[in-house]
Amino acid sequence: MGADLIIENAAEIVTCAPRAGEARPGVLTGASLVIEQGRITHLGPAERVAAELAAKGRTPASFPRLDAAGKAVLPGFIDAHTHLVFAGDRVDEFSRRLAGEGYLEILRHGGGILSTVRATRRASREELLRLGRKRLDAMLAHGVTTVEAKSGYGLDRDTEIRQLEVACELGCLHPVEVVPTFLGAHAVPEEYRGRPSAYIDFLIAAVLPEVAARGLARFCDVFCETGVFSPAEARRLLRAAADLGLGLKIHADEMSPLGGAELAAELGAVSADHLLHVSPAGIAALARAGVVAVLLPMTAFSLREPYAPARAILEAGGTVALATDFNPGSCYSESIPLLSALGAVALGLSAEEIVAALTIHAAAALGIAGTVGSLEVGKQGDLVVLDAPSYRHLPYRLGVNLVETVVKRGEIVCDKRNPGGTAC
Amino acid sequence: MGADLIIENAAEIVTCAPRAGEARPGVLTGASLVIEQGRITHLGPAERVAAELAAKGRTPASFPRLDAAGKAVLPGFIDAHTHLVFAGDRVDEFSRRLAGEGYLEILRHGGGILSTVRATRRASREELLRLGRKRLDAMLAHGVTTVEAKSGYGLDRDTEIRQLEVACELGCLHPVEVVPTFLGAHAVPEEYRGRPSAYIDFLIAAVLPEVAARGLARFCDVFCETGVFSPAEARRLLRAAADLGLGLKIHADEMSPLGGAELAAELGAVSADHLLHVSPAGIAALARAGVVAVLLPMTAFSLREPYAPARAILEAGGTVALATDFNPGSCYSESIPLLSALGAVALGLSAEEIVAALTIHAAAALGIAGTVGSLEVGKQGDLVVLDAPSYRHLPYRLGVNLVETVVKRGEIVCDKRNPGGTAC
Repeated sequence: MGADLIIENAAEIVTCAPRAGEARPGVLTGASLVIEQGRITHLGPAERVAAELAAKGRTPASFPRLDAAGKAVLPGFIDAHTHLVFAGDRVDEFSRRLAGEGYLEILRHGGGILSTVRATRRASREELLRLGRKRLDAMLAHGVTTVEAKSGYGLDRDTEIRQLEVACELGCLHPVEVVPTFLGAHAVPEEYRGRPSAYIDFLIAAVLPEVAARGLARFCDVFCETGVFSPAEARRLLRAAADLGLGLKIHADEMSPLGGAELAAELGAVSADHLLHVSPAGIAALARAGVVAVLLPMTAFSLREPYAPARAILEAGGTVALATDFNPGSCYSESIPLLSALGAVALGLSAEEIVAALTIHAAAALGIAGTVGSLEVGKQGDLVVLDAPSYRHLPYRLGVNLVETVVKRGEIVCDKRNPGGTAC
Repeated sequence: MGADLIIENAAEIVTCAPRAGEARPGVLTGASLVIEQGRITHLGPAERVAAELAAKGRTPASFPRLDAAGKAVLPGFIDAHTHLVFAGDRVDEFSRRLAGEGYLEILRHGGGILSTVRATRRASREELLRLGRKRLDAMLAHGVTTVEAKSGYGLDRDTEIRQLEVACELGCLHPVEVVPTFLGAHAVPEEYRGRPSAYIDFLIAAVLPEVAARGLARFCDVFCETGVFSPAEARRLLRAAADLGLGLKIHADEMSPLGGAELAAELGAVSADHLLHVSPAGIAALARAGVVAVLLPMTAFSLREPYAPARAILEAGGTVALATDFNPGSCYSESIPLLSALGAVALGLSAEEIVAALTIHAAAALGIAGTVGSLEVGKQGDLVVLDAPSYRHLPYRLGVNLVETVVKRGEIVCDKRNPGGTAC
């Protein structure tokens, strides 16, 4: 599992290796990067790398070579919050919403999350796999090498399990690595209307144990929101999940400051996501507890909601990741370029903060910063080559996909320079 | 010049043919479209098209075929406002601006339009061609089949002429059709600092006549703005241009309500562009005079400026086109997807209005709505196939490039289904 590759001549190699007190993401020039059997084994000045290889009886020329002349090389992007597996679309709802129609009217017209639940329950495993594969292709073409995938459009035992099985299978079939998250508590299903607590009981008794026992998810997530699941209900579910060995995530403080961030800190969740209305106390709690704030500005943009207070989170010492929130309702988009543009223009992040938020901090939000998210010796050889001389072009080239080549575990899995080569 | 093609099975063919009083862009289902020698010769129900072909002694099977099953077919997009030809970038300025640095500070650090002027003056014709070609490739991949290209980074005779020559040559070399516009009055060059009127005299005496005589531009444009060129100066230049047979455009009311829209109406300009601060009187004047309002929301987004009053312009009976404003300073982006997303979310346009603004209304802004911009018998066979069943997915799939295939004059010039085929 994993190939050999040497990358030479890059205008810059952006390591994103965490370094105390440094704002810059670690930019190497004149450097080479060697991947052996899928792992980075050498990274540094080209002459030093050549000397290291010589000491092992090898030469740069003995490796498959990627010439990155004039281009920037970055860690592969990590999309730490998506709803990858679903059927159907909600294009009607999008039009109606932007025309000013209210939530209840949209529901009356058959829109809203439960319409995706109906479509997903009806969809076969094969259909979900076909749809998921196509979406992963598009994500890969945007430079994504690892993606989190939540369930939550089943809201019953069988469909939730099927979504997670499909997510796991997609990760095997496709170059993009998939980290599955159990989000059975994404909404209250029609069968439990008005009884969210009973639905939580059901999840804890009848779904969560199987998810954990079969290793179908790495995390348990919950939509903690007024009118959905209360902090008390969320706490009950997440504690049960933690007892079964799952990591924790929370859809927190999206519509109102309900204390989701504080709950994430209390429970030691790996991330708190959305945070449009996080309170100052919540911001402080996240920083204190080392919970990653996963911000989803494309959703705020699409919903015309205020943006999460990214700068306040950073100034409090918090860690910010950016993710797409790919889903058919509020944000049907895998666009890392739009995400980067909003990171800069709407959230006020610098290019350095954006790159870290798409790589090493996104890895931290999935608990995998030890293996991916930065270019360092020993880490997985996941990277992108931009058709631009610097990472600083990512937000500057507003909405433009600059990714030219994608490498996963040392293998070139997407190459737009060579249309006859690997499609993506 | 021009190829044959039949398009069959499309989920919908969106004609964008102007029809009085209709909000919908003209959507045909079960239709076929035939292009012969680059022109649309048949369009309608598949059986009727087959019968029409039979009457000419031909069959659908005798044409090269594009199977658009499950996909939407639209007119090729027309980007009616770009600064295509320039050298250098301004990535530093972008970072500084978003970090809150003021315009004067940016100038002190070597930023601003005059830095692009310096780089463009230094660039060879070959370098400008190379850069332009690469940009047209990227635009084509976004579904653009016709692009307007302004000069304005020379601000001297030789470089302005060179920019226009390069624009014309690019249009010959590349499948994307290029409509050149003379924007010598884009800024006051260093040589004329404090003497804008003298610079206008120079343009009228020493550059405009050659531009017109050699047919190097179809339009003359001017940046009418406080601190740049006054309405009186703009009027003088544009009248001289009109006398030489050029069409007129104005960068109008971008930073302040200076009366650019009113001037465009007075002079019978084909378009008034930007319009962030257009006055109610200006809106009424545009509608009365039939001047197309070319809105550039990616620039407003990037500059964190208010958006142009698109709905007010439409409600006054005006015509709205959307364009990228592709340029290295305020909007280095060819992203039709981001443009569509901002059209919906920021300007409040419907999917129907967005599609018309990218096609038939953009054609009107270039005075070429008689030959391109809609799918009608007799018009040029320029179209895009989306990897989506409906035009309504354009804004819904926020920031995602849905263009799968691009056809220019009946020829498939970009095809992402077939990476071994035509690159784009």
